[in-house]
Amino acid sequence: MDTFKTAQDAEDVFYDALEESDLEKMMSAWSDEEDIICIQPMRNQVRGRTAISNSWKEIFAANAQLEIEIHHQHWIEMSDAAVHVLHAQLIFNGDRTHRLPPLITTNIFRRGEKGWRMVLHHASLPPPPPIPQAPGMKP
Amino acid sequence: MDTFKTAQDAEDVFYDALEESDLEKMMSAWSDEEDIICIQPMRNQVRGRTAISNSWKEIFAANAQLEIEIHHQHWIEMSDAAVHVLHAQLIFNGDRTHRLPPLITTNIFRRGEKGWRMVLHHASLPPPPPIPQAPGMKP
Repeated sequence: MDTFKTAQDAEDVFYDALEESDLEKMMSAWSDEEDIICIQPMRNQVRGRTAISNSWKEIFAANAQLEIEIHHQHWIEMSDAAVHVLHAQLIFNGDRTHRLPPLITTNIFRRGEKGWRMVLHHASLPPPPPIPQAPGMKP
Repeated sequence: MDTFKTAQDAEDVFYDALEESDLEKMMSAWSDEEDIICIQPMRNQVRGRTAISNSWKEIFAANAQLEIEIHHQHWIEMSDAAVHVLHAQLIFNGDRTHRLPPLITTNIFRRGEKGWRMVLHHASLPPPPPIPQAPGMKP
C-alpha cells in the first residue's frame, strides 16, 4: 500500500479512484483501522473497511463515466488530523452544460504510522437555489 | 468562558444551547479560533466566529420550542481532535408523534489551551425512507 505524506495526497487518490471506479485504489485512501465512516447523500452511513468497500463496490458497479471538480472551501489542520471541506462538482458523461449542484463534503484524515489516510467522508446535498421571481410577482 | 475537559462536554453545551436558543452558550461551545465552519441543511456554509454567530442568531430568532434527542453513531479519537457522528432527532413543540427524519451530523472538536471546543458542525438530511409497496404491487 502507498504511504501518503500529506492529507491532500490521500484525498487526490480518493477522487482519482472515484473517477476511475477503482475499488483497490479507493480503499488505499482509507485508514486500515476499523473506526472509519462514510456518509453519502441518499445512502445509509457505513462503517468499517468491509462495509465501506462493499458500498463503493455497489456504486462503482454503475460504471458511471464521471469527472469530478474539487473546490476546496476550508481546511483545519491539527497535529495528527486534517479536515478538508470542499464542494465536489460531479460531471457525468462529459456533460458540462447540465450541472448538478455540487456536493458539500467534509473529509477527515488521520496521520498514522503509514502516513495520512481518510477516516471520514461526509457528503451532502447543498441548499436548493433561490426560487426566481416571475415579473410582476410580489416577493 | 468555560473550559471543557472533554469533547463530549462541549457537545452537550452545543445541544443545550440549541434547545435553549441561547446564543452566548452556543458560541462558548465553539473554538475561539477563526478556522471554524458550520454546515447546516438548507443553509449555505458559514465560516469564522462572526458569521457562525450571526447564523445561529437568525435561527434562534424563530424561537422554536425545540427538544433534541442525540443518538451517537460513531466516535474517532485522536490526540488533539475528536470526531462524533450522531443522529439528531429534533422534536418541535413537544410533538413526539410526527417525527422528522433525524439529521445525520458530524461534529469535530479540537483540544486547545482552553480545553475542547467545536471546530466543525456538518448536519445533513438522511436518505428518504423506502417507498412502501401497495398490496399486489410488483416490487
